[in-house]
Amino acid sequence: MTDLSHPNPNSARPGDAADRFPKDCWYVAARSVEVGRALLKRTIACENLVLYRTEGGKAVAMIDMCPHRHAPLSLGKLVGDSIECGYHGITFDCEGRCVRVPGEERIPDHFRTKVYPLVEKWSFIWVWLGDPARADEALLPQDFRFQDDPEWCPMDDYIHVKANYRLVIDNLLDLSHEAFLHMGTIGNAAVADTPAVTTIKGDNIEVKRFMENCAPPKLFVRAGGFTTNIDRHQRIQFVPSSFVIIEVWATPTGKEEKGVIWWVLNALTPETERSTHYFWGLPRKFKLDDTELTDILRAGVTRTFREDCDMLEGQQRNIDRVPLEQRTIYTRSDQAPTRARSIIADMVEREAAAAGVRP
Amino acid sequence: MTDLSHPNPNSARPGDAADRFPKDCWYVAARSVEVGRALLKRTIACENLVLYRTEGGKAVAMIDMCPHRHAPLSLGKLVGDSIECGYHGITFDCEGRCVRVPGEERIPDHFRTKVYPLVEKWSFIWVWLGDPARADEALLPQDFRFQDDPEWCPMDDYIHVKANYRLVIDNLLDLSHEAFLHMGTIGNAAVADTPAVTTIKGDNIEVKRFMENCAPPKLFVRAGGFTTNIDRHQRIQFVPSSFVIIEVWATPTGKEEKGVIWWVLNALTPETERSTHYFWGLPRKFKLDDTELTDILRAGVTRTFREDCDMLEGQQRNIDRVPLEQRTIYTRSDQAPTRARSIIADMVEREAAAAGVRP
Amino acid sequence: MTDLSHPNPNSARPGDAADRFPKDCWYVAARSVEVGRALLKRTIACENLVLYRTEGGKAVAMIDMCPHRHAPLSLGKLVGDSIECGYHGITFDCEGRCVRVPGEERIPDHFRTKVYPLVEKWSFIWVWLGDPARADEALLPQDFRFQDDPEWCPMDDYIHVKANYRLVIDNLLDLSHEAFLHMGTIGNAAVADTPAVTTIKGDNIEVKRFMENCAPPKLFVRAGGFTTNIDRHQRIQFVPSSFVIIEVWATPTGKEEKGVIWWVLNALTPETERSTHYFWGLPRKFKLDDTELTDILRAGVTRTFREDCDMLEGQQRNIDRVPLEQRTIYTRSDQAPTRARSIIADMVEREAAAAGVRP
Repeated sequence: MTDLSHPNPNSARPGDAADRFPKDCWYVAARSVEVGRALLKRTIACENLVLYRTEGGKAVAMIDMCPHRHAPLSLGKLVGDSIECGYHGITFDCEGRCVRVPGEERIPDHFRTKVYPLVEKWSFIWVWLGDPARADEALLPQDFRFQDDPEWCPMDDYIHVKANYRLVIDNLLDLSHEAFLHMGTIGNAAVADTPAVTTIKGDNIEVKRFMENCAPPKLFVRAGGFTTNIDRHQRIQFVPSSFVIIEVWATPTGKEEKGVIWWVLNALTPETERSTHYFWGLPRKFKLDDTELTDILRAGVTRTFREDCDMLEGQQRNIDRVPLEQRTIYTRSDQAPTRARSIIADMVEREAAAAGVRP
Repeated sequence: MTDLSHPNPNSARPGDAADRFPKDCWYVAARSVEVGRALLKRTIACENLVLYRTEGGKAVAMIDMCPHRHAPLSLGKLVGDSIECGYHGITFDCEGRCVRVPGEERIPDHFRTKVYPLVEKWSFIWVWLGDPARADEALLPQDFRFQDDPEWCPMDDYIHVKANYRLVIDNLLDLSHEAFLHMGTIGNAAVADTPAVTTIKGDNIEVKRFMENCAPPKLFVRAGGFTTNIDRHQRIQFVPSSFVIIEVWATPTGKEEKGVIWWVLNALTPETERSTHYFWGLPRKFKLDDTELTDILRAGVTRTFREDCDMLEGQQRNIDRVPLEQRTIYTRSDQAPTRARSIIADMVEREAAAAGVRP
Repeated sequence: MTDLSHPNPNSARPGDAADRFPKDCWYVAARSVEVGRALLKRTIACENLVLYRTEGGKAVAMIDMCPHRHAPLSLGKLVGDSIECGYHGITFDCEGRCVRVPGEERIPDHFRTKVYPLVEKWSFIWVWLGDPARADEALLPQDFRFQDDPEWCPMDDYIHVKANYRLVIDNLLDLSHEAFLHMGTIGNAAVADTPAVTTIKGDNIEVKRFMENCAPPKLFVRAGGFTTNIDRHQRIQFVPSSFVIIEVWATPTGKEEKGVIWWVLNALTPETERSTHYFWGLPRKFKLDDTELTDILRAGVTRTFREDCDMLEGQQRNIDRVPLEQRTIYTRSDQAPTRARSIIADMVEREAAAAGVRP
């Protein structure tokens, strides 16, 4: 436990270097089910995007601003696979090429709008805000693949958080809070009492906690039907810049029988400095066909994340108001969140250096 | 069609030179029908005004702030032709002279509050925010006179827009957008397909578009009873700093018979950097006594301007958020709006220079 | 009556020196009845506090921010006399000592959170935001004692004002406004017509007004049952930095019989630069057991202060918008408010100088 003074890595104030966002990385922009032939506007890392599908079903992400007069393209309409701006009718195809300027005959080749590299995979739409040349599908967080595995039952959903995304990452990298905030769903005393083992190698952060012979949390009882104490296991990974992946299993203590096996896949997409699109998946490897259980889990996780929201939004309000000279106490559990913040800050700095601008 | 980089004349961000407002000019402050013996508060170009009528019916515009303690005079009451501040009872007559300070016997001559030069004409109240010595009734946009002409049927109304007034001026100087945004009322494809002829002489901007043998827009059909194609004519003038005047006529193609003749008189009064009082008149020279038509036109124009609002407010939100290095594509239709912005910027600069302050 | 130009002591704009708050002084943080075993969050002078009572009934004020991760402690829960943070369970006793960090065995002595000096007296909770060594109960405004005097009937209540607290102090130090704003309750013409006598000695400000043979205000009639004119007396004191104490009595003119005797105890606690916690007491020395009268007075005073709110919030909006070069007219009645502002500004400056920072 250390007691650090400034600079405060908890800061989520605008104007701080920490407020800018990595751009050379994948962010989840939407759940697959959200995107169709209606224009969907969404702000990601302070950039306004519009999302839609071509007639062939391919998802497209475009800047939500006509380069002519800055009108939101999301107020326009789809004409085939192109967007026609609702203001003056200037039209861009799904690769960003301007294909029509009403009243003009010749359209110079360089009249384009920004289209973002996009991958649709594992129930989500992933976009790359930065240099398109660096967009590499291999950089997607591969553990989201369980959403697509026939041996697993997928689930995904979304919650909006009025707090900086790094506060949500902090939250997920220190699950000791489950014992205080989530006793009605996934918390038990063991999560706080059992020290976690944190392993940091470069940008790889792993936090493991094995809780033997502990009381089963309420949602685990409903999901796994436990009648005795359980052995509970958490393995948490931070995948830069915005993913926290949690492997969970639990079995009745001392028994061979199967219990609960799921992954919590968290994609924390910054919307603005003070708000986050919290996309999540919860693929499970038991009772695959139990749709009632799916409903129970969706409701339980949603309740859990709403409890987080209240706390995160309270933190954000404090951080917005409180002078930063306020010192921060760090505990052993802060090793992973603190490292994750450094990794994100380094990404921002590297990108700024590469762009030749002062970070 | 040109592709300009900075400085971006679309900018409506605070802090830009373009954000200050010309003051040595007439602005419409209210419709005549709005002003009576109740105190009406209204913000114009970031100045707070209070408007009322004397017992004799003369309209008065005063700063809405008691010079004593900054209380809004609009929270006070009329005592004859004077306003008594609702806080401490200090009273100002309709020429701004302080006529009572409760508890004080002598009132120095220089205790005054600001009263604005005001003209009531053509259904509107016009005020002059700048140097009263320059306020000249001859500078009013004379084409508003049709509101008072017995050969014309007047109409006027108001809509509030949460966008900078220059975006509204842009809108009106490039009516090609009618073909995309207003197909339910005044738009037809011809507006976008027919090139306009723009004539710029000093501060005079005129845009003319003659559309032969085109489909009549829906509102024209309802107003003019057209059963065939029409010849449609638009003549748009920018009158600095905040007026756009549009002469419109339409007749059945190839026939002598009368059709639609109206003017759209637009007074775009800045409220703040991000909001506009949009006053409009629509005097027409046909079916003068048809009150049902008056209702149809009012509803049609209101719908049309609401469609504009959605787009303008979307533009404003984009401009507020998007880095200005975003390049703007200009089309041939942008000649007039771009020139109008320059004229306004020049007015601000000239006034600043005359006042000896840095623009 | 003087006509001063800048600097404008009416200013309540952020960034002005005048916007900072004295901290070495008592502020009312709450009414006693508000504080119990539920955690009460309250912002005072831009600091976030949480208030509660120990099991023994002692009131406690703590900073509403866990020093670990800035979570609001008010989202946690009481465990005996301590607060357990609702996020990670870190626990602080009522003296601010950290007594538990889940997962850690040793807690260094210097892990503490801020607890504010607090006095509970006269129906209110008083806190000291500044240097605890200077917190001295003798500095409380002693005239609040009538709230506890058996010969008096106490009453207290609260109203929230969206305006700077100095505007509320201005309001109370110049009661001539009662003749304009409060004619439905405590105003009569005499308050504006009768000059007040202002006495300033150092930081002591006293304003006295004796109104002979005047019409009784409506609330006085309901309280005192007056059927004739009255003699009315006001003695107003400013007690730095946030108290205005008003002694009031009224008797039927020329009669010996008792009438109305009350004090209006005003504690104007700044919440932010633009909002005030307005705590008030109204101990009276007549009809002590008349609970119906208590209800009438509470309703009358609440109505009166709401009338003030409308005006104060209008002032604040004007001050936020209007260029400060706007000159202010001062009247004779402004002597006391102007002096009170200077006293507050001096307190801030002295504290800044003592802290070695630029004011």
